[in-house]
Amino acid sequence: MDATHDPQRRSFVASANGHADFPIQNLPLGIFSPKGGAARGGVAIGGCILDLGAVAHLLGGDARRAAEAAAGDALNALFALGAGPRRALRAALSDLLAEGSAQRAAVEPNLYDAADCEMHLPARIGDYTDFFAGIHHATNAGKQFRPDNPLLPNYKYVPVAYHGRASSLRISGTDVRRPKGQRKPASETVPTYGPSRNLDYEMEFGIWIGTGNAQGEPIPIAEAAEHIAGYCLLNDWSARDIQGWEAQPLGPFLAKNFCTSISPWVVTPEALEPFRIAQAPRPEGDPKPLDYLWDEADQARGALDLAVEVLLQTPKGGPFRLSISNTSHLYWTFAQMVAHHSCGGCNLAPGDLFGSGTISSPTEDGFGALLEITYGGRKPITLPNGEERRFLEDGDTVIFSARAQRDGFVSIGFGECRGTILPAT
Amino acid sequence: MDATHDPQRRSFVASANGHADFPIQNLPLGIFSPKGGAARGGVAIGGCILDLGAVAHLLGGDARRAAEAAAGDALNALFALGAGPRRALRAALSDLLAEGSAQRAAVEPNLYDAADCEMHLPARIGDYTDFFAGIHHATNAGKQFRPDNPLLPNYKYVPVAYHGRASSLRISGTDVRRPKGQRKPASETVPTYGPSRNLDYEMEFGIWIGTGNAQGEPIPIAEAAEHIAGYCLLNDWSARDIQGWEAQPLGPFLAKNFCTSISPWVVTPEALEPFRIAQAPRPEGDPKPLDYLWDEADQARGALDLAVEVLLQTPKGGPFRLSISNTSHLYWTFAQMVAHHSCGGCNLAPGDLFGSGTISSPTEDGFGALLEITYGGRKPITLPNGEERRFLEDGDTVIFSARAQRDGFVSIGFGECRGTILPAT
Repeated sequence: MDATHDPQRRSFVASANGHADFPIQNLPLGIFSPKGGAARGGVAIGGCILDLGAVAHLLGGDARRAAEAAAGDALNALFALGAGPRRALRAALSDLLAEGSAQRAAVEPNLYDAADCEMHLPARIGDYTDFFAGIHHATNAGKQFRPDNPLLPNYKYVPVAYHGRASSLRISGTDVRRPKGQRKPASETVPTYGPSRNLDYEMEFGIWIGTGNAQGEPIPIAEAAEHIAGYCLLNDWSARDIQGWEAQPLGPFLAKNFCTSISPWVVTPEALEPFRIAQAPRPEGDPKPLDYLWDEADQARGALDLAVEVLLQTPKGGPFRLSISNTSHLYWTFAQMVAHHSCGGCNLAPGDLFGSGTISSPTEDGFGALLEITYGGRKPITLPNGEERRFLEDGDTVIFSARAQRDGFVSIGFGECRGTILPAT
Repeated sequence: MDATHDPQRRSFVASANGHADFPIQNLPLGIFSPKGGAARGGVAIGGCILDLGAVAHLLGGDARRAAEAAAGDALNALFALGAGPRRALRAALSDLLAEGSAQRAAVEPNLYDAADCEMHLPARIGDYTDFFAGIHHATNAGKQFRPDNPLLPNYKYVPVAYHGRASSLRISGTDVRRPKGQRKPASETVPTYGPSRNLDYEMEFGIWIGTGNAQGEPIPIAEAAEHIAGYCLLNDWSARDIQGWEAQPLGPFLAKNFCTSISPWVVTPEALEPFRIAQAPRPEGDPKPLDYLWDEADQARGALDLAVEVLLQTPKGGPFRLSISNTSHLYWTFAQMVAHHSCGGCNLAPGDLFGSGTISSPTEDGFGALLEITYGGRKPITLPNGEERRFLEDGDTVIFSARAQRDGFVSIGFGECRGTILPAT
């Protein structure tokens, strides 16, 4: 076992030991600013954040280069260095923060209490792409339009995706203004402009791109996983009434681009290594992916076993659990998303972000959006405190979390992706 | 008449007088690098380019501030200053470059022969959005799927758009690699991965965003035109076979994101002022736009009268004209695009780029894509040299141009948007 995953390893940062999300076995990367200070790269360790640029001089070689690249207000430069320096940084930080670290005295002045820090977007996001790889979500959503034939013929061949809006991505904790837009319920003959009446969340996984590719040069599937810098949680807030009216024939636009929320910590592929699993075998009768999407090693180790949970806090109560699902329900691996995105020559760049698509289980307790849970609003749910919900109401807070667990390993988490709905202006 | 449009005004730069695109009445902005020099902001004047940063000290007030903002390798900072400084810069440059200019001696050392310069993308493009406002194109494209009902019910209410890929936008002259992707002709039962067989262009107009808006704060239609920094030509290269298979239900993705080409010069709203016209009245029976898209002044002056032409040069001959159309065929004004894009709270930023959607005339001689000209490839065209085309072949070069003409004014142009198809790798 890699020493960074040793369950016996503890940190001299006391809050890290037994921490639900950020024990020393995780070491996720992010951009933070201490009170009154500038934004800079950091690593979460328990309830603290270590300033990476400030400790770069304690490191050597690739690890030092990586820490220096993280000293600015965005992690793009670190992502651009690729997997080698990122792995070296992880190994070095694990030693630096371990109990008995010879550098403890030099490290401690550069630790900040996370409660006193503000988190920022981890990178300047050049382009944001949203996939549609949650097959149970795609099926449930499709049923609302095509009850007998919910999945379109391309679904099992194409890792379907569309381009999203990069400018309106926001860090967890940012309030979400209910959007206005054109809505035309079936009962009305013409659309009207006004606040969305069917505001929803979508529980997604975010994928950060590390090294990119030159335009015209696809990334082979066997190399695709090496282009991923890490993962986060992503809420693809969706105005269902706006979406239903605007989205044909060119896809969702204003229904999604008013805000997309992400969790601030980039959990690295290295931290998630123990939680990699085989991609679930395709059901009998499903086609084998085309060659440019097929790699034995990716099939054997390309999926992740992470529990993902959605909580709802209302102005009157909660938080109440709305669902719990697992990233293993995705129909395509993350490497397949990278290979597909670049297969026509589109150039990816460090700091690009993918959404996985809404992650839903086959069963109701794991549906990743209210659209599915309330069957398009037709079957409201009753919360434990008696409140009803069809869609989100003003003042509601949606909270995502994720957890990686495996016998013999220390469990790690992602922190929260949270947003509260403000009334339309 | 504004002195900058005075047809009597001539420049001491001899090549500007009578220049088809860049007489002193145009003064478009761009980013260029002289041989061996760094990229910087410039203004086209005839066959020359004037270095803006280098002449900033000759200007005063807002004009100087604007020229200084254009000194770097992208025009975002200039765009962010808004319409006032941009207008001041135009007026000052017109005086600076006019015959009899007292500053001629100070200006001339900062003029470069355009033939010796390389052009670059005018701005760092945060987000790129492609509209679908060419109603004749939308109708022609829709007919291929729904012969009796080509326009969907939302078309005349919603300025339909989708998010495109910012990273693969390239400047005119960049070769375009034929993309590979999944194609499934109706005659085959499963898709295969390979080079697109139906590669096409789309003749579009590009709209550069100047000042943006805060997230959650829509731009009112009456203010929307002031948020536009300028215009260019845009080729939304499209792989029709990939598009036909991948694009449902979330819109086009790999069919478009391998490359989008734009012309390098930003023609300002000020330069186009004489060529503004009323938006064509909607046909009898079409709905009036909703209030958030309706502004009398915009209807009266919000469209542009620009002839747009498509030429095809093949390895064996040409260039041959494929079409000539006019920007007045767009169903929505540029201000309506801005107001719609932001109406749900999506934040626009300086340097964002919109495509208008393919501009087609009602008649065949003005169809803006081969999809329309050859009826989806079913009716090949014969070029004047006897060659046939269904879609683009390797080695073909597509050249767009645009021209503004009006009695009593000097005609101006946009320069070229050009790209040559390279074979798939």
